[in-house]
Amino acid sequence: MLSKNKIKYIRSLELKKNRKEEQVFLAEGHKLVEDLMGHFPCPLLVATSSWLLQQRKIEAEEIIEVTQEELDKVSLQKAPQGVLAVFKQPQYELQPEVLKHSLCLALDDVQDPGNLGTIIRLADWFGIEHIFCSMGTVDVYNPKTIQATMGAIARVKVHYCDLSLFIKSLKNIPVYGTFLDGENIYGKSLSANGLIVMGNEGKGVSPEVGGLINKRLYIPNYPVDRTTSESLNVAVATAIVCAEFRRRMC
Amino acid sequence: MLSKNKIKYIRSLELKKNRKEEQVFLAEGHKLVEDLMGHFPCPLLVATSSWLLQQRKIEAEEIIEVTQEELDKVSLQKAPQGVLAVFKQPQYELQPEVLKHSLCLALDDVQDPGNLGTIIRLADWFGIEHIFCSMGTVDVYNPKTIQATMGAIARVKVHYCDLSLFIKSLKNIPVYGTFLDGENIYGKSLSANGLIVMGNEGKGVSPEVGGLINKRLYIPNYPVDRTTSESLNVAVATAIVCAEFRRRMC
Repeated sequence: MLSKNKIKYIRSLELKKNRKEEQVFLAEGHKLVEDLMGHFPCPLLVATSSWLLQQRKIEAEEIIEVTQEELDKVSLQKAPQGVLAVFKQPQYELQPEVLKHSLCLALDDVQDPGNLGTIIRLADWFGIEHIFCSMGTVDVYNPKTIQATMGAIARVKVHYCDLSLFIKSLKNIPVYGTFLDGENIYGKSLSANGLIVMGNEGKGVSPEVGGLINKRLYIPNYPVDRTTSESLNVAVATAIVCAEFRRRMC
Repeated sequence: MLSKNKIKYIRSLELKKNRKEEQVFLAEGHKLVEDLMGHFPCPLLVATSSWLLQQRKIEAEEIIEVTQEELDKVSLQKAPQGVLAVFKQPQYELQPEVLKHSLCLALDDVQDPGNLGTIIRLADWFGIEHIFCSMGTVDVYNPKTIQATMGAIARVKVHYCDLSLFIKSLKNIPVYGTFLDGENIYGKSLSANGLIVMGNEGKGVSPEVGGLINKRLYIPNYPVDRTTSESLNVAVATAIVCAEFRRRMC
């Protein structure tokens, strides 16, 4: 059974301030919790008896068995499944030298938690291990972000930093970005390493960060002379750019 | 000022049942309402005086001027802007012959309203004018879908039909879909016309519809021998596939 204090604690993790203070995050659902278990320490696991019975090994400091009704009450999901877990936030060291031999993403104030989660998921698909986020980017431990990663958060390392300072510190690293006045991505040579910068949903890349991008790309619309939407969703644009980089290597 | 009846009416449009009965949908925000105005008849427009002052021409049957506070109360958005409009749902005729000379999308039970809106927006970017949805696909007039289209709903025609019956009725039309055991999309020849079928977020394409797909594609992950996420978000996968079709024509 869940005590009032535990309910209050779990609910409090909806807010970034409390997640940061406790250095934890929430994950819900069979698949996601099973995928993250073992990757991150789990101080608290709340589950129904039927979920618990199906598990061979549960690595959690505290396990609380509840009814589905109790879980429904504390869950942040619309359709709660049999399990909810609190995991420890990982601590990663910022290592700019990974950019010498691998492709990474940078996000300049992406605001929507679903977009960030979707980007983490596709980064994982395309073998991108590091994402550098501006301090104004939505919190990666937002429950909506964690759910949208579909477990990719176990493999992709997300760093927060002063993005323009970070990019300025890079030496001889190609820095890519997409702009309406950029060059057709399909005709450009693309490197196997470097940084791909994606911007905010409404405003795109900030002028400060934009000035540091030395490879300006454009995803052509079709047909090119047609009036269409003015832009693509940021996760969609990221996907097309990443697919184009990886396509050359397949 | 908004009467209680009007507030009740607007609020009621959050539900598909009521939207269907009234044959209308809701749109909010400067940019979206301005983009849709003129494309669809507008029986009701609710706006602040400052928004109304900025408009040259408003094509609405009824205009109600409100304060921002009144608008906030009736809005479904987290951050309401100065305007909310009720538009008439368009009626499109199902014309399978468009598939003879153009590329179209089919969605088999896509559930998330944001995903549907994002797909409509990217379809518009890639010059795809028709989307055929299974009856189990989320309602295109869901307010979250409309907002996510960012106005592309004015240009892309969304049809609902029995998807397997529809595909069975097609003669000599290539029908594409993505599957984990499909062929590498980058190496396949892709036609300038035909249907690209995308499936449900959790279950993918249904077995019935899947059996009607004659071109089975796969978006390669990278590196191919690495353990990664098992799949991509449906809007992301749709984007990569559409970009690949259009890339050949740029």
